[in-house]
Amino acid sequence: MKKFIDSIENLLETSLQGFAKAHADIVKYHNDPRFVQRKTGKTDKVVIISGGGSGHEPLHSGFVGLGMLDAACPGQIFTSPTPDQMLAAAQAVDAGQGVLFIVKNYAGDVMNFEMAAEMLDLPNATVLINDDVSLPKNHSIGRRGVAGTLIVEKIVGAAAEQGADLATCKALAERVNAATASMGVALTSCTVPALGHPTFILADDEIELGVGIHGEHGRETTKLVSASQIVERLSGHIQEELNPQPGQQVLLHVNGFGATPMVELHLMYALAWEFWQQRGLQISRSLVGNYTTSLDMAGCSITLCLLDDEMLNYWDAPVNTAALRWGC
Amino acid sequence: MKKFIDSIENLLETSLQGFAKAHADIVKYHNDPRFVQRKTGKTDKVVIISGGGSGHEPLHSGFVGLGMLDAACPGQIFTSPTPDQMLAAAQAVDAGQGVLFIVKNYAGDVMNFEMAAEMLDLPNATVLINDDVSLPKNHSIGRRGVAGTLIVEKIVGAAAEQGADLATCKALAERVNAATASMGVALTSCTVPALGHPTFILADDEIELGVGIHGEHGRETTKLVSASQIVERLSGHIQEELNPQPGQQVLLHVNGFGATPMVELHLMYALAWEFWQQRGLQISRSLVGNYTTSLDMAGCSITLCLLDDEMLNYWDAPVNTAALRWGC
Repeated sequence: MKKFIDSIENLLETSLQGFAKAHADIVKYHNDPRFVQRKTGKTDKVVIISGGGSGHEPLHSGFVGLGMLDAACPGQIFTSPTPDQMLAAAQAVDAGQGVLFIVKNYAGDVMNFEMAAEMLDLPNATVLINDDVSLPKNHSIGRRGVAGTLIVEKIVGAAAEQGADLATCKALAERVNAATASMGVALTSCTVPALGHPTFILADDEIELGVGIHGEHGRETTKLVSASQIVERLSGHIQEELNPQPGQQVLLHVNGFGATPMVELHLMYALAWEFWQQRGLQISRSLVGNYTTSLDMAGCSITLCLLDDEMLNYWDAPVNTAALRWGC
Repeated sequence: MKKFIDSIENLLETSLQGFAKAHADIVKYHNDPRFVQRKTGKTDKVVIISGGGSGHEPLHSGFVGLGMLDAACPGQIFTSPTPDQMLAAAQAVDAGQGVLFIVKNYAGDVMNFEMAAEMLDLPNATVLINDDVSLPKNHSIGRRGVAGTLIVEKIVGAAAEQGADLATCKALAERVNAATASMGVALTSCTVPALGHPTFILADDEIELGVGIHGEHGRETTKLVSASQIVERLSGHIQEELNPQPGQQVLLHVNGFGATPMVELHLMYALAWEFWQQRGLQISRSLVGNYTTSLDMAGCSITLCLLDDEMLNYWDAPVNTAALRWGC
């Protein structure tokens, strides 16, 4: 394993300290229990908190700031954060208007956010994100939350910033989640530092369609095919799920898993744009880059979100975080 | 070679079309000859143009927009753009106040920008960027331009936006270049699509200190050591070069080469911050992320820029590009 590292034990802690120093105008970092908190801005509002295993940066800490998250709880790499982190984060940012947890649908995350919710003596709600269409809808553990999560966080973060109450924020988050579908493909595995070797092996001519953001098996291990064919496959599954109608306005997000160059991500975006444009969709907003990563995995995902005017306005609203910034 | 690709021939063209579609609010793309142009904003100003081989994205196209570049000329991957691209770009954005070319010091880039400068019947100037301290100052082909380039582009772009004349912009660019030093390290090679295999080979326990952004050999191939030791080595060479005094305010930039996860880049930033803080520097501004990449190379560089108040104000000035955005 070749990584920039001093020791497995201090990697995450030192990295989070570096993150907080590099973005000291936007965030504060608390190390025990571990959470990243928004530094400035309005406080008499519903607060939005997310979290999950580390290794997906900038998700979630990079989305803490005005117009998006009030706090994020990073677990160890690919490991759920603990309830005490969520509890401490909620108590630090709570403004008496309620707390909304945005939780990707993984067993550990769900359980620990639930425990924190029970411990909180605050108006509290939880929204589960499950935008990954790689698994069937009736899958026993449900579908995974992947790159669509940031779209929920951005839109609901803007609503909270503008004074929406807890019930409105929760309903909006559920509406965005239902309107969002993602599917990913891996060209390579990633290497978790504590493990020291790749999580899974793909042959030189193989790809994993429908991979999860921790390298979970997806729909199919298949031969490497052209970028156009990959886009057709991913987008086809998204189309089956969302069944968007001609004229529908959408947000199209191509997300890199970490090790895929921008020249390839923009190629994938061009091909996905073509796919949806041919089906009459109005591609109103775009996001291309490494936002929901899987350490050093080569690969990407495509996410489509069917926008209504309210969602579009919230997407466009000012945001000032480490990883998304506009209108500020 | 595993990449998202349809054909070697259309990769760059389709990718640039994707880039332009994803950022249609900021840029226009011309495909013959190939350049990316700023879409909106003030025009009666000195225009700032850069360019170079592709494969380093977001450099340079991702820095086209208000407060930074007026145009960028992308060559094929790791290949200089041609003079007709620079000429067409200059003619498209020229506003009669002069054209400044910001050119990384590579033989092909320098020659072709010089030819374009000769062909232009416009007030014209060129600044060479050579911030890479891996090679000695008196090296026969001079030092390479690397991650410091974007700092010059940001600061001079802001000056031009605020109405500085051509001579002032050129002098400022030279001052920033002289105040900036970078050094990089590779953990792996990158793979150029047209080549189909890694450019160079490092053993499983080797790293390349002082690597260039195309994988050029640096100071030394050495054994993999700890992140702290790598930061000491890179920062030590930068210190020898710039000899910053206690109290000096600086911009500290940790740049990823493409395949290194943010968790490691923020670790490197924390260690570099410690190095300079111990030497009494005032780390006033930071930038951490993949900005001057080398396709899918794992590795990073450290850049230090000694700021004066004028440079700091220009750094903070509004910028609205695909890859850097604040104050807008």
